[in-house]
Amino acid sequence: MKMFKTKTTSLLIGLTLGLGAASSAYSQESLEDVMKARGLTQKDLLAAAKTYTPTGGRDEYLAFSSGGQSGHVIVYGIPSMRILKYIGVFTPEPWQGYGFDDESKAVLAQGRINGKDIVYGDTHHPAFSEKEGDYDGRYLFINDKANPRLAVIDLHDFETKQIVVNPFFKSDHGGAFVTPNTEYVMEASQYAAPYSDEFVPLEEFNSKYRGGVTYWKFDDKKGRLNPDESFTFELPPYSQDLSDAGKNASYGWGFTNSFCSERYVGGIERGRPPFEAGCSQKDTDFLHVTNWKKAAELVAAGKVKKVNDAYLITMDQAVKEGLLYLIPEPKSPHGVDVSPKGDHIIVSGKLDSHAWVYSWAKIQDAIKNQKFEAKDPYGIPIISLKDALHKQVQVGLGPLHTQYDAKECVVYTSIYVDSMVTKWDYCEGKVLDQLNIHYNIGHLLTMEGDSVSPDGKYLVSLNKLSIDRFNPVGPLHPQNHQLIDISGEKMQLLYDMPLPLGEPHYVVAIKADKLKPAVRYKSGWDSRTDKKHPYKTRAGREKVVREGNRVHVYGTVIRSHITPEIIEVEEGDEVSIHLTNLERAQDEVHGFAMYGQNVQLSIEPGKTASTTFVADKAGVYPYYCTEFCSALHLEMQGYLLVKPKGYKAKATDMQEGQQYTKADYDKQVKTNVETQAVIDSVVAFITSHNYKDFKTVVDLVTDATDQLGFAEEAKKKAEDFAAKGDYQNATLWAGQWWQYQVKTADLGLRAKTFLEENGAKKIK
Amino acid sequence: MKMFKTKTTSLLIGLTLGLGAASSAYSQESLEDVMKARGLTQKDLLAAAKTYTPTGGRDEYLAFSSGGQSGHVIVYGIPSMRILKYIGVFTPEPWQGYGFDDESKAVLAQGRINGKDIVYGDTHHPAFSEKEGDYDGRYLFINDKANPRLAVIDLHDFETKQIVVNPFFKSDHGGAFVTPNTEYVMEASQYAAPYSDEFVPLEEFNSKYRGGVTYWKFDDKKGRLNPDESFTFELPPYSQDLSDAGKNASYGWGFTNSFCSERYVGGIERGRPPFEAGCSQKDTDFLHVTNWKKAAELVAAGKVKKVNDAYLITMDQAVKEGLLYLIPEPKSPHGVDVSPKGDHIIVSGKLDSHAWVYSWAKIQDAIKNQKFEAKDPYGIPIISLKDALHKQVQVGLGPLHTQYDAKECVVYTSIYVDSMVTKWDYCEGKVLDQLNIHYNIGHLLTMEGDSVSPDGKYLVSLNKLSIDRFNPVGPLHPQNHQLIDISGEKMQLLYDMPLPLGEPHYVVAIKADKLKPAVRYKSGWDSRTDKKHPYKTRAGREKVVREGNRVHVYGTVIRSHITPEIIEVEEGDEVSIHLTNLERAQDEVHGFAMYGQNVQLSIEPGKTASTTFVADKAGVYPYYCTEFCSALHLEMQGYLLVKPKGYKAKATDMQEGQQYTKADYDKQVKTNVETQAVIDSVVAFITSHNYKDFKTVVDLVTDATDQLGFAEEAKKKAEDFAAKGDYQNATLWAGQWWQYQVKTADLGLRAKTFLEENGAKKIK
Repeated sequence: MKMFKTKTTSLLIGLTLGLGAASSAYSQESLEDVMKARGLTQKDLLAAAKTYTPTGGRDEYLAFSSGGQSGHVIVYGIPSMRILKYIGVFTPEPWQGYGFDDESKAVLAQGRINGKDIVYGDTHHPAFSEKEGDYDGRYLFINDKANPRLAVIDLHDFETKQIVVNPFFKSDHGGAFVTPNTEYVMEASQYAAPYSDEFVPLEEFNSKYRGGVTYWKFDDKKGRLNPDESFTFELPPYSQDLSDAGKNASYGWGFTNSFCSERYVGGIERGRPPFEAGCSQKDTDFLHVTNWKKAAELVAAGKVKKVNDAYLITMDQAVKEGLLYLIPEPKSPHGVDVSPKGDHIIVSGKLDSHAWVYSWAKIQDAIKNQKFEAKDPYGIPIISLKDALHKQVQVGLGPLHTQYDAKECVVYTSIYVDSMVTKWDYCEGKVLDQLNIHYNIGHLLTMEGDSVSPDGKYLVSLNKLSIDRFNPVGPLHPQNHQLIDISGEKMQLLYDMPLPLGEPHYVVAIKADKLKPAVRYKSGWDSRTDKKHPYKTRAGREKVVREGNRVHVYGTVIRSHITPEIIEVEEGDEVSIHLTNLERAQDEVHGFAMYGQNVQLSIEPGKTASTTFVADKAGVYPYYCTEFCSALHLEMQGYLLVKPKGYKAKATDMQEGQQYTKADYDKQVKTNVETQAVIDSVVAFITSHNYKDFKTVVDLVTDATDQLGFAEEAKKKAEDFAAKGDYQNATLWAGQWWQYQVKTADLGLRAKTFLEENGAKKIK
Repeated sequence: MKMFKTKTTSLLIGLTLGLGAASSAYSQESLEDVMKARGLTQKDLLAAAKTYTPTGGRDEYLAFSSGGQSGHVIVYGIPSMRILKYIGVFTPEPWQGYGFDDESKAVLAQGRINGKDIVYGDTHHPAFSEKEGDYDGRYLFINDKANPRLAVIDLHDFETKQIVVNPFFKSDHGGAFVTPNTEYVMEASQYAAPYSDEFVPLEEFNSKYRGGVTYWKFDDKKGRLNPDESFTFELPPYSQDLSDAGKNASYGWGFTNSFCSERYVGGIERGRPPFEAGCSQKDTDFLHVTNWKKAAELVAAGKVKKVNDAYLITMDQAVKEGLLYLIPEPKSPHGVDVSPKGDHIIVSGKLDSHAWVYSWAKIQDAIKNQKFEAKDPYGIPIISLKDALHKQVQVGLGPLHTQYDAKECVVYTSIYVDSMVTKWDYCEGKVLDQLNIHYNIGHLLTMEGDSVSPDGKYLVSLNKLSIDRFNPVGPLHPQNHQLIDISGEKMQLLYDMPLPLGEPHYVVAIKADKLKPAVRYKSGWDSRTDKKHPYKTRAGREKVVREGNRVHVYGTVIRSHITPEIIEVEEGDEVSIHLTNLERAQDEVHGFAMYGQNVQLSIEPGKTASTTFVADKAGVYPYYCTEFCSALHLEMQGYLLVKPKGYKAKATDMQEGQQYTKADYDKQVKTNVETQAVIDSVVAFITSHNYKDFKTVVDLVTDATDQLGFAEEAKKKAEDFAAKGDYQNATLWAGQWWQYQVKTADLGLRAKTFLEENGAKKIK
């Protein structure tokens, strides 16, 4: 058994190396050499130490970033700034099988507009589900600006579960924002448009184009948005932008800002000044204040009418019921950010140099006393600035978005034109620190900075231009997220992180230990509906069911074969292949791709995934596993044979490429017996140590035991054929028996190495 | 002009801060504190110093990785291990507009199979173009395993330019591999299938299913593969796998390995042992040796016949002409890797523990002397192992792929089952070092390790399982690429890098300074055909051309408006919108998305990109720029108005939302005059310094000068309207004048900061 002898040798070599290395290679001197060679300063080294995460290390926070035009959500670790996953949301993504398997196609189909599949989204603002204003780590919501849609991602498995289309809007930007117990998810429109699908000329912009903000009801038990209990505030055509939900003091209210309250319509091609000129002419735009709690009561009481089959609170009704107010805000603002206590609201305008701090107490007083400076053209009461403002603070040119620190009164504002972050005190109204970034920061985020209890610690600057920060990769540049240490008095730049796909707009970060993602599904699970899959099957129960020209294949995948390996259908059949991954081991994903049919599945342990297509052309279609799952992964293959209609098979046997004899069988058995001896020695090593104290090893042992069970089954088949003198089949099954032994050895050796590397102790 | 006062304040604060920080925050003590708090060892710190890349720093190598099932190519830097770009190749990707703009749709359409759009690929093996066996940094080739296709990426702009479909195969794995002067790109089939599109029963596998290797001719002048001069070797149904082209000593030859030379056909569902058992039963498979140079001569001489409209060298012809030989190789191998001098070839089998080193001199002798041990069932001469072998070296369990070091005779082999990398000497046949990886390594790469002059330095281990290496993100795990320092005698693990999208199979790395990517296109450029775009236009020449129900919009984009801002069409019109980006500044990309129409363009500086759709439903369709390009990016918007057929407009004027007076105009002009004074002071600062020594600043000044020119134009319009007493338009154009000033200021301030941060000197 030469193949296992090596391992002993290599382990010995490995041990020797480990001992030798510690004493010499990592000395202080060589550190200085490296710093000199790479031009690193002491400051760089400190930043490196604050971000570098050794093998197997964990990040303290997970950031969930919009993926911009990619239509995805991006997950990365802080402080290592390593990207862990792109989650397909609005755009098909084959690695995940998203938009390729039948189950996720059904999710994407929920997002159709005017009956059309929409195959991308422009994701902007993610938001976590909350409990009492704190992130609970259960769900993430994200919007699509280009088409007014919201998606729900379950953080149990990091999969998109639902897409809803706004019943009124033609675009949205200011979503998603979540109320403190995830009662509702806010989605505001952006570019005003008619609520109907019909053509309305721009000449009627003021009277017939509308904005709005939708409060989507979240069904906590189902983990889905419920359109039937959701409602929308009709708003003037003011280009509503971002929102934030009130919390604590301001619980029950929502805030939505706007730009272009000039209601300007461009037309540069016909000699009119462009939108950019007409939409930035007034000194102020309007902050919209909406009372969602009272609105929800009206809806529940049946007092709100339905339009487009959804509840719409008209401006008239909102004004009459005291649900809607306006407050002047600096022109062309972006973020509106409610303080952790809910008592202050910060807004800043991209063409101003001030952040404006509003007092919720003052706003409440104005509302209580019905003290308004005017009404807007649509009859909405306007609270005067002086009756709402706490302070205006000069923070820099082009302030954009503000995030809160763990320290009371401390906030960070992104400064777009000045390309910097300003740290300031919003209670006292004074600037504390400023840091240059590279370049033109849009949003920023602090750790759990949107919640009622921000953590401070780190800040990420979401820069809109990277220009010269990275090695050039052509005219289309990556974005640049800069990690900044905010734990001390002064901000320290730690890391530049390129974003390789999509332009993130906003990111939210959660303490990593709040997330409890699964590593497997219950066997036979439809991950998109979170139910048992109707076409699941088990090992040994695989079958092909045909009804007329409709064919259902109930199949399985496991290291290293797909069952069935040959599928025969007729030209014109509509074929569904449903594959259940029989694995239980973490990370033992199998894929499934087929020639010429756009078939690509990602089948994680336990999952059942399906593909449906019409076998419209007779021919031979190889298929195979697309995840490198095991040593014989390339051999995890099969053929779909599409026969011409009415094809009559000739009665010929399979031509065997190779013939095996008793000598071949005996040789294979000898190898297997020797292999078993090595496995036994590995098992002896593991069981003579306290392996049960190591979860990783316990999982490996469970998996190895499974594989060894399969080896036993193959052994029995081999022996049965040998007893009948069929050495062809006996040899091949003995080969299969050995394949399972190799898989067992792979796991056993990994477990043994783990125990050795992690100081397992010998038990008596 | 309050908005510019802040800058002065903030700059002063910034300078003060910078000085304060240097003396205290980055002391040795705090480094130790950080290490203690984060549990870092000295070894970790050294690894951090070897990988950490400070802001603006450059990576020494750029790695180009297959993106597996994602269908993309992934670009990352070494040693920082930061991902710089995902390049869309076989899968539509909206951030890049890939598969969304008309130009790239045409590229994807080249990859249709049986008339069907194939919307993903399973990318496996990238390869750089070469000159004299060295990477020349001009092109990258990548294959699709699921559908037998190859793509060409131009490294001038990192865009996919061409996709070709193999005329014979139904899958490929072993591509792309490049001959030393990029004469040809090799693509080998994987799963045997009939060459025709017709159904052939598996009972005729041995006689009618075939493998093969295609040599795609590369047209160096056009930068495209030329199917008309390409040819394919017909090969037995042995599941051909990876290839490598001979070089130096073995120039003119190609090597292709295989598995399942048993020609076994599975069928576990019908009681047959699975493929994995039958395909791994023999001790050896076959290395195929092909003479492409002589084959090319035969093709040129008209001696090769066409099948499926492509040159096919049949096995009979290949044998007769002495173009094709077989050599036994360890069973189920993966990599076949030719040494830099071309004198040795290393193959290892995943079920063996040895790497096998072949001697090209011995192989040549055997061919010269026509010394063969046998012929295979298809008549191909087999060179005996002893007549070809240099050494068999025990390297570990499950060796997979070998890469070369800069040091003579030194190689690194990935060891799948043992989860380690073995460094060994292939001349002497001895193991030098071994390092555990996490977990189950597939391919590995050294810097320029495929070329005639490998650089050594770093090695990346492409691990197929990450399991517990990172924060959990659900059942589907990222992959793990581990960076290893190989500059010393012993290998040192430096970094674990998660791959967030797709499972890379192979990666190639090139010295970064060999790449010279562009940052802009010539104005009005079609980047996919590399020609002037037929629908390009210039500023002021925008137009809409209608022929019947076919509408072409010749538009432009620039900070911060799209021209035209309003597009009117009729229901049923087929509309093409062609947008030219007028920017010259690096990273000034504009996007273009539209509600409900699956429109998403990425328009880099100079590029013209087009979208074509049928306006099939009357209504209002907002569109906007999807790249955060400037402070008023949100205002970069417009409307497509689709009118019902035969709609008659009522003669109504635009309802203006806001009226402006002389007072408004005067106020705006006052602001602008003050702003100009600030701009002048910034200009004075810049021009009083040696700014011409800083390319970044020169670029910024060029751009700022452009913007100021636009400001002048708007100023003139404002003054003209004011002269006519039209203060509505005068005020708005004065606002536009100010918008250009803001853009100028943005650039000027960035230039000023850059000069201050980079030690510019005052000139007299």
